[in-house]
Amino acid sequence: MTTTQEDVDLEKEILELAQEARQASLTLSTVPPEKKNEALLKMGELILEKREEIKASNAIDIENGQKNGLSKAMLDRLVLTDKRIDQMVEGLKQVAELPDPVGEMIEEVVPSSGIKIQKRRVPIGVIGIIYESRPNVTIDCAALCLKSGNAAILRGGKEAFHSNTALIEVISEALQAVGLPEAALILVPTTDRQALNVLLKLDDLVHAIIPRGGEGLIRFVAENSRIPVIKHYKGVCSLFVDSSADLEMALRIAINGKCQRPGVCNALENLLVHKDVVDSHLVPIADALSERGVELRIEPDYLPNLKARNIAAVEASSEDFYEEYLDLILSIKIVDSTEEAIAFINEHGSSHSDAIVTEDESDAEAFLNSVDSATVYWNASTRFTDGFQFGLGAEIGISTDRLHARGPMGLRELCTYKYVIKGKGEIVS
Amino acid sequence: MTTTQEDVDLEKEILELAQEARQASLTLSTVPPEKKNEALLKMGELILEKREEIKASNAIDIENGQKNGLSKAMLDRLVLTDKRIDQMVEGLKQVAELPDPVGEMIEEVVPSSGIKIQKRRVPIGVIGIIYESRPNVTIDCAALCLKSGNAAILRGGKEAFHSNTALIEVISEALQAVGLPEAALILVPTTDRQALNVLLKLDDLVHAIIPRGGEGLIRFVAENSRIPVIKHYKGVCSLFVDSSADLEMALRIAINGKCQRPGVCNALENLLVHKDVVDSHLVPIADALSERGVELRIEPDYLPNLKARNIAAVEASSEDFYEEYLDLILSIKIVDSTEEAIAFINEHGSSHSDAIVTEDESDAEAFLNSVDSATVYWNASTRFTDGFQFGLGAEIGISTDRLHARGPMGLRELCTYKYVIKGKGEIVS
Repeated sequence: MTTTQEDVDLEKEILELAQEARQASLTLSTVPPEKKNEALLKMGELILEKREEIKASNAIDIENGQKNGLSKAMLDRLVLTDKRIDQMVEGLKQVAELPDPVGEMIEEVVPSSGIKIQKRRVPIGVIGIIYESRPNVTIDCAALCLKSGNAAILRGGKEAFHSNTALIEVISEALQAVGLPEAALILVPTTDRQALNVLLKLDDLVHAIIPRGGEGLIRFVAENSRIPVIKHYKGVCSLFVDSSADLEMALRIAINGKCQRPGVCNALENLLVHKDVVDSHLVPIADALSERGVELRIEPDYLPNLKARNIAAVEASSEDFYEEYLDLILSIKIVDSTEEAIAFINEHGSSHSDAIVTEDESDAEAFLNSVDSATVYWNASTRFTDGFQFGLGAEIGISTDRLHARGPMGLRELCTYKYVIKGKGEIVS
Repeated sequence: MTTTQEDVDLEKEILELAQEARQASLTLSTVPPEKKNEALLKMGELILEKREEIKASNAIDIENGQKNGLSKAMLDRLVLTDKRIDQMVEGLKQVAELPDPVGEMIEEVVPSSGIKIQKRRVPIGVIGIIYESRPNVTIDCAALCLKSGNAAILRGGKEAFHSNTALIEVISEALQAVGLPEAALILVPTTDRQALNVLLKLDDLVHAIIPRGGEGLIRFVAENSRIPVIKHYKGVCSLFVDSSADLEMALRIAINGKCQRPGVCNALENLLVHKDVVDSHLVPIADALSERGVELRIEPDYLPNLKARNIAAVEASSEDFYEEYLDLILSIKIVDSTEEAIAFINEHGSSHSDAIVTEDESDAEAFLNSVDSATVYWNASTRFTDGFQFGLGAEIGISTDRLHARGPMGLRELCTYKYVIKGKGEIVS
């Protein structure tokens, strides 16, 4: 590959943006909560004031999208309706009302030497957010990063470029109005892949990358980043109906998990049923799901059990159990024991959210301890895996990684800590 | 690059090791504390029993090292004396006595929906430790990973290959003796760089990489790993002597920081002094350090201040302030204010450990809040940055990263958490 003058210029431009963001992050880290909240509320005011300009910019993206043949679902995510604009403003107010995580005392230690060691929560520094076509992510992420004292470099999708540019102008104006550095929230001014590649190598200046969007984008980021990435690829969530499960409860949790919002990452994709309750539990659950339009894919051996009751179903392939359908489709597996269910989930799931319905406490404990996922449920729906449901007030994403944050991530997860030691002249002997 | 049959075989071998480690980690995650402690004590017993075999294997490494012209420092790190073997055994006993981090309740949340959410500490999974010539690291890391319920894949340096192989045999025997899976602690059976490259790409099976050693090794790992890496490249630590500093205290802390053990990462490399106390404070400190054999490198403008008192010193170049000397050398910078000191440290330091000596509380608070390092000190020596000094009981390393862990890392930092939700049939409405 040859390096052109354009490449050199782009590299320089991205580097300068990151340096500005880093400088801004040092300022932001000690800004008092009121100042940050003032900026958030100001952003909301300005969004309302400039509603028509923002909608006009969005209309350009929509028109381009239609010309370029974007799918209906993509166009739907892209459009900024009045209602969505109102929601953005409401979201800003809500984040302003959340407690400030910066400076929270996590722990205090006084070891034998007598020096006082405090572990204090502090911002991470500079966060890169890589996302796709939803312009409201620009405001959500800006709000959460600012509130947690981080500078953010936002890199949205090309489909939303005009919308994002209009929103970032409002953000900059609000930051200026309250006297905060504009570089606290930067939009990468190009959607060139090469710019993203440059950004992902700046591990001296950018401290964390959070990609949001489809699995393809997230894999690209994870494979090309030298900066630590917090992410989840997908949510392959399972429900295990144990032999002692309360039928009515299992039915309710299965329907909620699969049908309430099938397109989200905490929806069910796999149903596991104990072999002793195939007729008593699986049949009525399958019947109820089928009635609600769910396509059932079941292990070949058990297909006759459903066919005999006139429940529509097809054979599941072994690959189906790794699949994130994000649709009204469910794979069904029969297991001999809780141990088999646990091993099956650890092999096929995505470490996101998994549930057991059982009346047996020892089965429940085995499941909760041994299923190696970010969130594990006993007698509750996997649909609870969400920052708002978890009382975090807001959510920057959900992690299926192990380091730093796991499960729904809010303001605290956008922080790290530092050790602060106050002495009286102590030295190490 | 062409792929040979050897490459394919190596790839397969490393993949299989990682798969075995992953399976072992699932078992380990629910092993009771007593069992893990039994394994640790058994390792200690067996090391004492097989002391002569271990020393014989180590002698082969030493002989090879001498043939291959290893430096005296490297050979010193490599040798397993009786005293070092006794220390390894003592270390195993100490880790066995530490509280078990697994299962600790971190937080309990009951959001408005009424479901009970517990955040529980759990092992990370599989940890890869990449290290150089010190064979005692094999035992330290094995002990800490096992105690925290993690499987570990150890990849030591080629210089210590025979020593490490002897130690891992003892570890395997101890695991077997107490009925734990041998794959809980695996030594990569080759020191081929290509094997390391394969390992660093297995992000489905290995969850964290901790490199220990020289900056070159750590950079290689960070640049080639698809698995999250927790690390520090170097420790460029600064001491700022403010205008209100107590002279006697500043003197004590400077001497301790620079001279007590100059080759470690928490030793001082930079001394910053407020311009108002050059004569009153810098001169006596420089004098004392010079007497102790420290080479002083000072900003050209202030060289005459030292020369006038017959204190040996040379001009510092601007690069000197980024340097980790690990030796009796110190760079000296004069600043106009605490703000300048903070900015200088954030620019030149390595975010490891930095200290201020001052009697002025507002200067101290500014320094503690704004110096962006893992550990910040007011009136105490940077030499305290150490897992034992911090009361962690043991240390797997020190992180200057922001995500997951910062500063000294012990057993808790080898854990992640999971959300455990117990319901009564709740669904999301």
